[in-house]
Amino acid sequence: MNHVFRRSSSMHARCLFKGVKKVHPSENSRHFCELSENHEASSWKSMEGLVRCPANYIPLSPISFLQRAAKVYRDRTSVVYGSLKFTWEQTLVRCVKLASGLAQLGISRGDVVATLAPNIPAMQELHFAVPMAGAVICTLNTRHDPSMISVLLQHSKAKIIFVDYQFLHIAQAAFDLLSENKLKPPALVLISEYTPPSPSDPVSNTHDYESLLASGDSKYITKQPNTEFDPISINYTSGTTSQPKGVVYNHRGAYLNALATTSLHGMINTPVYLWTVPMFHCNGWCLIWGLAALGGTNICLRHVSPKEIFDNIALNQVTHMGGAPTVLNMIVNSNDQKLLPHKVEIMTGGAPPPPPILSKIEELGFSVSHLYGLTETYGPGTSCVWKPEWDSLPREERLRFKARQGVEHYCLEEVDVRNSATMESVPADGVTMGEIMFRGNTVMSGYLKDVNATEEAFAGGWFRSGDLAVKHEDGYIEVKDRLKDIVISGGENISTVEVETVLYRHPAVLEAAVVARPDNHWGQTPCAFVKLKDGFEVSSEEMIKFCRYRLPHYMAPRTVIFEDLPKTSTGKIQKFVLREKAKALGSLF
Amino acid sequence: MNHVFRRSSSMHARCLFKGVKKVHPSENSRHFCELSENHEASSWKSMEGLVRCPANYIPLSPISFLQRAAKVYRDRTSVVYGSLKFTWEQTLVRCVKLASGLAQLGISRGDVVATLAPNIPAMQELHFAVPMAGAVICTLNTRHDPSMISVLLQHSKAKIIFVDYQFLHIAQAAFDLLSENKLKPPALVLISEYTPPSPSDPVSNTHDYESLLASGDSKYITKQPNTEFDPISINYTSGTTSQPKGVVYNHRGAYLNALATTSLHGMINTPVYLWTVPMFHCNGWCLIWGLAALGGTNICLRHVSPKEIFDNIALNQVTHMGGAPTVLNMIVNSNDQKLLPHKVEIMTGGAPPPPPILSKIEELGFSVSHLYGLTETYGPGTSCVWKPEWDSLPREERLRFKARQGVEHYCLEEVDVRNSATMESVPADGVTMGEIMFRGNTVMSGYLKDVNATEEAFAGGWFRSGDLAVKHEDGYIEVKDRLKDIVISGGENISTVEVETVLYRHPAVLEAAVVARPDNHWGQTPCAFVKLKDGFEVSSEEMIKFCRYRLPHYMAPRTVIFEDLPKTSTGKIQKFVLREKAKALGSLF
Repeated sequence: MNHVFRRSSSMHARCLFKGVKKVHPSENSRHFCELSENHEASSWKSMEGLVRCPANYIPLSPISFLQRAAKVYRDRTSVVYGSLKFTWEQTLVRCVKLASGLAQLGISRGDVVATLAPNIPAMQELHFAVPMAGAVICTLNTRHDPSMISVLLQHSKAKIIFVDYQFLHIAQAAFDLLSENKLKPPALVLISEYTPPSPSDPVSNTHDYESLLASGDSKYITKQPNTEFDPISINYTSGTTSQPKGVVYNHRGAYLNALATTSLHGMINTPVYLWTVPMFHCNGWCLIWGLAALGGTNICLRHVSPKEIFDNIALNQVTHMGGAPTVLNMIVNSNDQKLLPHKVEIMTGGAPPPPPILSKIEELGFSVSHLYGLTETYGPGTSCVWKPEWDSLPREERLRFKARQGVEHYCLEEVDVRNSATMESVPADGVTMGEIMFRGNTVMSGYLKDVNATEEAFAGGWFRSGDLAVKHEDGYIEVKDRLKDIVISGGENISTVEVETVLYRHPAVLEAAVVARPDNHWGQTPCAFVKLKDGFEVSSEEMIKFCRYRLPHYMAPRTVIFEDLPKTSTGKIQKFVLREKAKALGSLF
Repeated sequence: MNHVFRRSSSMHARCLFKGVKKVHPSENSRHFCELSENHEASSWKSMEGLVRCPANYIPLSPISFLQRAAKVYRDRTSVVYGSLKFTWEQTLVRCVKLASGLAQLGISRGDVVATLAPNIPAMQELHFAVPMAGAVICTLNTRHDPSMISVLLQHSKAKIIFVDYQFLHIAQAAFDLLSENKLKPPALVLISEYTPPSPSDPVSNTHDYESLLASGDSKYITKQPNTEFDPISINYTSGTTSQPKGVVYNHRGAYLNALATTSLHGMINTPVYLWTVPMFHCNGWCLIWGLAALGGTNICLRHVSPKEIFDNIALNQVTHMGGAPTVLNMIVNSNDQKLLPHKVEIMTGGAPPPPPILSKIEELGFSVSHLYGLTETYGPGTSCVWKPEWDSLPREERLRFKARQGVEHYCLEEVDVRNSATMESVPADGVTMGEIMFRGNTVMSGYLKDVNATEEAFAGGWFRSGDLAVKHEDGYIEVKDRLKDIVISGGENISTVEVETVLYRHPAVLEAAVVARPDNHWGQTPCAFVKLKDGFEVSSEEMIKFCRYRLPHYMAPRTVIFEDLPKTSTGKIQKFVLREKAKALGSLF
């Protein structure tokens, strides 16, 4: 044991100095001890006089951003949704009351609270209120079908789900599925468009959002995490395999990534951020928390459309926004597009932005930055940090550079491209492919209740992304392919295995394989190659309909081709052959 | 023990997944366990699958900023000193070699390495190289005399001191004092103006900076801190008292404050920072580290003068600088002043900036922000975050608002004004005085080898600043005085800062300080020490009249003495010396 930091027990005694008033000992004055593996410990002997106590150690948590914002940016606008506006002071009060309401509903430390909602103010509030009640927020993808929602509710053991009225039928259908399986559905809190509070319905275990909030105590004492490694959120990936995985974030990582992402966005005091990135996706790249750190304004949109985007930029003096290439595509192909009244920084990610789109969107007055990451890296993991010398390059080359995934995100320790088997770093030659790997404090805590998947992801002491890339001479990485055969459509990952599983359910299907078909609008769409059983005849329309009944619309194939499937000598379907065929088909529209 | 994070022993086993190659286990894969004081631990049982391992946990350290900068900002300029320039790639190589050189000289984990140097590139390099060798950097104030240097070398047990040629005679005199006391002086590394390396002198235990660096191994493996709470630096406070205290910073606090201070400065990518704040002072408010995080450029000045400031702003496109009010004062009273070619953000702190100076410097094109803090808060602890509604106030009022100390610094948890005895928060009435107190991760680890002083400073679970302030309705604090500087006259507290602000408004006043003079009737009365600008003459009667016109009668000085003011080595006025003088004057009647 070194002399610098004492064991918790003695620390505790240490902190009970004369005159010490203990600050919520169960919440704030927790200490943890470092195991003394320090074989050079003796060198610290001269370092007496140092302590760790509530005055100089507080677990990092994004909750603190809100508390500071309510003071530093008290009267600044926190959120705008149509004509609805709150200040940061109001947002803090609402979040404290909502946390108190959650506690009254029986939510306690470590419980999971789910959401099924678009980018509305309630989503912002829940990102603070749920952790403030000591609980973990699990933001479900609003494109999921009832079956998937029921699976995720069961897996996460969510005790409450907050449901926006637009998705109530999905939640109810999911509840029915749970009941059919003799499982108790969670309590439901309905989020309507903002209206005065109405009473809860105790019989149906259904509550109203504003009423729950109104019932809360504004003097409720916010729960701070016991340690900064306490989980703060669960983000389910549709993943590269058929099994969705619950990616768990902790308070420390959320705090650091919030600081990192705002900085990388070039945000300084009180930015105005237009929400087109789904808040349910990686907790909005942690920007929901980051905007509180800077006293920024959240501009919420229920429906993302070019008209809404351009109207809001002008009306609310938007300074920053984000968006998958799909959103960029939507903007540049829209009839509602106009030149911007002022520069807007737009951060894109999810898939490499196609140069023609980059070019067009910059002509409108947007300044585009490009980032890359995974749910497992809290969203942004690398960013294509721009070099001034690239400004003078020919346009084509400039856009090609911008489409690179780049270098490690601020606050992430290291990204590298390595040989998956040997763990050796690939040469920076722009040619040799390897797997993108990350390590740092903004890498997930693990996959919820899936020790094997966690261990596999972290094997070698790095997080293995499953993405293939090359490393250029300057260290910038460029993604070349997915290790697995994921299809990315409209920014959403589609597991081909999942789609194939559904296809295989059709009585006429003998073999099926799904690959990506390039698409001008969606980036990619799923394209199915199917071999039918002898004597059967099915139309592609019928097959698509069959899939849409069983999958979210976006996951169902847009193209079905009936033919024999190419195979390796060991009988495995050669997807790369099919990918080439799908590519040759060109865009659907 | 909860199930989320396992004890170090099992964690260790956990991380030895299949295929794991251990990453410098003695350096990088250290874990510490949280003591399970969590009485609600059972609620985490469902959270299996989470781990802490080298992939997702790395002790926070500003060393990582340099490593990232060398990749992300590889060819950007790291440092400029006259005609000398290095890129971030070069800076990393130089720091690695210097760290290796330190290791060759026998420096190991926890050793203290001192410096005695102005703002030159070697100071930037040492701020990385010393921690990279596992050691602790102790930056001595260049204005100290040999006697103080010898005391601090002895107290810190520094094994090596890096001395700039300009201060070699001070160091040598300090060494003589140590030898006289039969104490072994540390090894000395001499920093000359940049020249090719020359051989060391083993006999005299003296080395040359560039030679030491050249002898280092560029493949040296950088030591990461064992824990993020490991000390990174010692900053001796010259204090306003006679006893210097060794304030210890840790890697975590340095990392967080570097992020916080760059953000508060409004710095985004690759700022250009002109060093007028001494790097030896609070490690340059942690900006030496912060500039690496953003790939910024350090503009070094051996001598700070208005001419150098204006020349460098133009030549190097300076975007940001800092400076105590003394520096602002120097600028506005200089004949070398000119209108700026572009806006420069200047952050001032150390003392409340007098409104007349603020006004003049803004006319030159500087944009001033005001921060307040102590060595114990890693420099900045609060900042006067500007409110847009203040823009439209009358100038006088606007400047008065800007002189407020403000609200908590980004990444600091909380600042409050409390009754020192009861620890109760004072009302936000702008009138009731209390002591400024801080808590957060950017509060020092403690005073080196002074357990009593540490305990006293942290008594009550907050760091007690010793400064008196009021809290305004909006939560902004305003320093009224040092606890020990306050004048109590006829039972009324008189803020000497307020009286000094009035004195500074007099056109003839260059510097002013107010202290208590004992008084048989009133207990104490305010006594002003004033240094007039060259060529001015004012009588004490006139000065008293000037103050009485602008202050309540009891607050105006009863005595005014015109003379040079005694200063600490950091340029702070030594009020304790003046207090002694005022005491010697005896009672007025």
